Amino acid sequence: MNALLIIAHGSRKQSSNDEVAQLAQRTAQLTSDFELVTHGFLELTTPDVPTAIQSAIEQGATRIVVMPYFLAAGYHVQEDLPGLLETARQQHPQVEIQCVNHIGAADDMPHWVLAQARR
Amino acid sequence: MNALLIIAHGSRKQSSNDEVAQLAQRTAQLTSDFELVTHGFLELTTPDVPTAIQSAIEQGATRIVVMPYFLAAGYHVQEDLPGLLETARQQHPQVEIQCVNHIGAADDMPHWVLAQARR
Repeated sequence: MNALLIIAHGSRKQSSNDEVAQLAQRTAQLTSDFELVTHGFLELTTPDVPTAIQSAIEQGATRIVVMPYFLAAGYHVQEDLPGLLETARQQHPQVEIQCVNHIGAADDMPHWVLAQARR
Repeated sequence: MNALLIIAHGSRKQSSNDEVAQLAQRTAQLTSDFELVTHGFLELTTPDVPTAIQSAIEQGATRIVVMPYFLAAGYHVQEDLPGLLETARQQHPQVEIQCVNHIGAADDMPHWVLAQARR
């Protein structure tokens, strides 16, 4: 079973964390490629990345696509998250855990910026 | 003359700031709605917001659409940037300065997340 795991930084502001949870819910409604769309956070709030991965596996995930919900490739995207994912791969060798580029690196971002600017 | 001003947080990491400058350049190539697409930062690097606005006006902007390049509506988006824009409006009353929703609030974000996850 394919899962999509959206990883955000996490905020002290609950409304920001809620936005991420709502994004996962809205994304789930759009896709049949991923039977599960869920979320996790690197810092400041929960679920953390190991817990989110564990939970996805308990729900039946055999392949997890991790999407870093970050605009810039800073330390969190380049060092912190890959380290957590490597640990998760060692703990769950039966599960394929793949990380795609952070959302800010999307080729279409200039189109998306324009779409939002025109609203 | 219409200008689009992309405002990012700013980073100590020059490559992250360069990503924002490149995003502005790539966006400029896609649009004729905005004769100028430029960028600025809230913290840690330059140009800051007042300087970016001043520069756009010197290049002929009479209307500036400000796009907060943030995924979450935290303090920077809700307090810091609106304050800077209010000051700019008082300093440049002849220029229309309008702020759109931050990129993370885009209705299409779930579609964009899926597009990036499928790559």
